[in-house]
Amino acid sequence: MQRLDEAKRTAILQAAKQRLSQYGVRKTTMQEIAEDAGIAVGTLYLYFKNKNEILIATAEAYTQQHIADSEKILRDPIPAPEKLKAYLINRFRAVRENRLSGSHAAELARAVIRLKPELQEKQGKAVKDNLSSILQEGVRANLFRIDRPEQDLEVFLYSIGYFFPLPTSEKYYEPSEEKLLLVVDWFIKQWSRK
Amino acid sequence: MQRLDEAKRTAILQAAKQRLSQYGVRKTTMQEIAEDAGIAVGTLYLYFKNKNEILIATAEAYTQQHIADSEKILRDPIPAPEKLKAYLINRFRAVRENRLSGSHAAELARAVIRLKPELQEKQGKAVKDNLSSILQEGVRANLFRIDRPEQDLEVFLYSIGYFFPLPTSEKYYEPSEEKLLLVVDWFIKQWSRK
Repeated sequence: MQRLDEAKRTAILQAAKQRLSQYGVRKTTMQEIAEDAGIAVGTLYLYFKNKNEILIATAEAYTQQHIADSEKILRDPIPAPEKLKAYLINRFRAVRENRLSGSHAAELARAVIRLKPELQEKQGKAVKDNLSSILQEGVRANLFRIDRPEQDLEVFLYSIGYFFPLPTSEKYYEPSEEKLLLVVDWFIKQWSRK
Repeated sequence: MQRLDEAKRTAILQAAKQRLSQYGVRKTTMQEIAEDAGIAVGTLYLYFKNKNEILIATAEAYTQQHIADSEKILRDPIPAPEKLKAYLINRFRAVRENRLSGSHAAELARAVIRLKPELQEKQGKAVKDNLSSILQEGVRANLFRIDRPEQDLEVFLYSIGYFFPLPTSEKYYEPSEEKLLLVVDWFIKQWSRK
């Protein structure tokens, strides 16, 4: 049996993601994905049984990227307010890139939720945990004064929700990074008040 | 010529709103709207030339209701924090009722925006003006301490956006009134700090 190669797998996922977001699941064939990835379709089947498996794998790769990005930002020795902004800018750009990846991006997101609903929940929980740990870091360093961190975190999550439109919903507005920072800076100011 | 009657016009709009949100614009006929309103189709044409005119009139009636509700709440001699909550609960319920009025609610909203885009802008501006006047009232009464009211209002508007999903977008979540109040109370607490 042919050995599976991590770099080849990544190349397949990248090619598949691009074609699927541009043409949608139904109009994309395994043959086309193989061609885009520069491999024979027989080889493609060694990696993935069908389009749904590929779709789930692209979503999992997205989650892995979030974990890698977050770990790097959370480890960075910068003050909590800067870390909070760096983390949210990273998320904002990742979500936007995903949303704008093609005219079928919303359809793909809906398909992934149907195939593997727990992925979206995990994603939401990871964001919440990361933000919570940044707020706690700020409190420990005496940069943030927060009486009820859990409540503040909940309010904060609602307040930035506008800037992270659900990937499943069709586009009706494009949120601005500048306005997200306005909101985040406002919260930082509240949390920094003596 | 038959005299036009305001009560009859209202009855037509109510009947039309209900049928259009349930069956959509394309599948609804002038004949059906007339039947639902209990009038002859010839009479219906005295009031409205076509379905689009009816659609715009239902959207205008919604705006009129907002104006009437807001004037009542803004005149009410209650402290600004209570007034803020009363106003937002009223808006939350009106928007929800509209959103849940039928499976074609999103389609209708999109049609109205296409036919008369300025209505949505006016609606957004009215909310902003009303909230601004409530905040100013709070500042004058020394109940709110707000250094930069315009910036706080902008942040606040983004923060409650999650609870007012665009009527044009398909439903993917149903926001909770209780959580809206959690967010509003949190802002009130910040604004009330000495």
